[in-house]
Amino acid sequence: MTIHFNKVAIIGVGLIGGSLAIVLRRKGIADSIVGIGRGVANLDNAKRLGVVDAVTQDIGAGVKDADLVVVAVPVLKIGETVHKAAPNLKKGCILTDVGSVKQSVIDEVAPIIPQGVHFVPGHPIAGTENSGVEAALPDLFTGRTCILTPMEKTDPRAVETIKTMWQEAGSKVIIMDAALHDRALAAVSHLPHMIAYTLVNTIADIKEKMPEILDYSAGGFRDFTRIASSSPEMWSDICAMNKESIVKTITDFQKRLEDLKKKVKAGDLSGLREDFERAKRLRDTLVERSRVSNK
Amino acid sequence: MTIHFNKVAIIGVGLIGGSLAIVLRRKGIADSIVGIGRGVANLDNAKRLGVVDAVTQDIGAGVKDADLVVVAVPVLKIGETVHKAAPNLKKGCILTDVGSVKQSVIDEVAPIIPQGVHFVPGHPIAGTENSGVEAALPDLFTGRTCILTPMEKTDPRAVETIKTMWQEAGSKVIIMDAALHDRALAAVSHLPHMIAYTLVNTIADIKEKMPEILDYSAGGFRDFTRIASSSPEMWSDICAMNKESIVKTITDFQKRLEDLKKKVKAGDLSGLREDFERAKRLRDTLVERSRVSNK
Repeated sequence: MTIHFNKVAIIGVGLIGGSLAIVLRRKGIADSIVGIGRGVANLDNAKRLGVVDAVTQDIGAGVKDADLVVVAVPVLKIGETVHKAAPNLKKGCILTDVGSVKQSVIDEVAPIIPQGVHFVPGHPIAGTENSGVEAALPDLFTGRTCILTPMEKTDPRAVETIKTMWQEAGSKVIIMDAALHDRALAAVSHLPHMIAYTLVNTIADIKEKMPEILDYSAGGFRDFTRIASSSPEMWSDICAMNKESIVKTITDFQKRLEDLKKKVKAGDLSGLREDFERAKRLRDTLVERSRVSNK
Repeated sequence: MTIHFNKVAIIGVGLIGGSLAIVLRRKGIADSIVGIGRGVANLDNAKRLGVVDAVTQDIGAGVKDADLVVVAVPVLKIGETVHKAAPNLKKGCILTDVGSVKQSVIDEVAPIIPQGVHFVPGHPIAGTENSGVEAALPDLFTGRTCILTPMEKTDPRAVETIKTMWQEAGSKVIIMDAALHDRALAAVSHLPHMIAYTLVNTIADIKEKMPEILDYSAGGFRDFTRIASSSPEMWSDICAMNKESIVKTITDFQKRLEDLKKKVKAGDLSGLREDFERAKRLRDTLVERSRVSNK
């Protein structure tokens, strides 16, 4: 399948929106790309860097005549953004988003999509702890997974178009149910972030009494806590949008941690060793997977 | 201060013991190095790689006439190892260890050290998730911290000698109280390992119902869980040796996590953002520190 758009509007030209714009341009998929955003400085950067052809702060004006609208704003702002764009969306236009949570986005957005406009909810699983258009990279999506969670009534041709777009960006595309997506991501992404933030704050508490505590930390601690440098705004938004699944995975984790603590207390070394071996086996398959996917 | 040993015995020629042997040889600090261990294959490798001059499985024979004995065996085996070595330790010899836990090592070892032998408990904070002499590196300790936890009665000249040895290996040496060491390391090293193992096992539980769960994980998850690939034997030993401090830091962490879960449940976005910002601020100083120390 070959895809082509006369005009693409990208609302939110940050790390994700900016990187996708670079791909669309390099691959000749878009004739013109308009960047829409709130921050003038970031929009100016996007234009200066050649990531987009034109910029505007006016969502309505920006999306006019676009064949494709990509909503790449923080997940909590997607509903309000689509609300502003809706009256000016062209018939036949495809609207997609890149939010890390899907069911609540669908609940907000699906009812306000005009007749004849196709909404394809999406989530490229990619990112770094950096943000803004200056962090955008042409290969941000290469070798990554992108999940699409279309509704039953979504036009299959629109889904196919967005699937092809992410494949052109180098991603493997998976199509799945939105609620399942949210449960899975709560486990492999949202839970680790909650834990990393909590661990660093536990150390911050200790640091108040032992200011030199970080002198005793090694590279492992630095790597382990890298994701605690992620955007606080983005992550509080994700907590709001995926509340139930996050609470559930935290509870699962709490049970396991309490069990581990009991084993430490009881000096149950063979039980601990079994737990650690089980974890090591699964973790080692991740290294194997990444070796294979880098080939 | 210049240090020199005629004969060094290294009991346990793995990642740490092997790397130290390489440093002692390259710096001309030791005339001869004997490697002592249980595994014949690993000892043969140590000799073949030129890490040590001679090897033996007999602890008593190996430590005879040594000026320096480095006990680099798993932390739970240190007591029994020193017990075997003690009758053959030369008067004036310095014995040091590299265990990740210090107070319980001192409790076991100090009473069995013969009169005239100097025991300097140590902990080089270095390592990778790999093990064995083949993983040994000349620069494993470069830029790292090594903590020494001498007792009140320890000969200051022996402490100074071991301090100089680790400085020659490129480490910054800190001298501190053993109990304080154990509390600090429980927080910045043992707790993160407990959490990483628990997180991976939480995902392993989910994987039983959702076999493709890891397809949705990104690089962040792989980095975050790297330490869950560490040696299960080593970590169950550490749990045994630093039980109280580990249980205490797990409890501190549990309180913070429960508090976070309540905020997610309540949709307290500003509270969450404050927590995440506090964590990000502290985590970002780690990156700053590593930049400075790499200069």
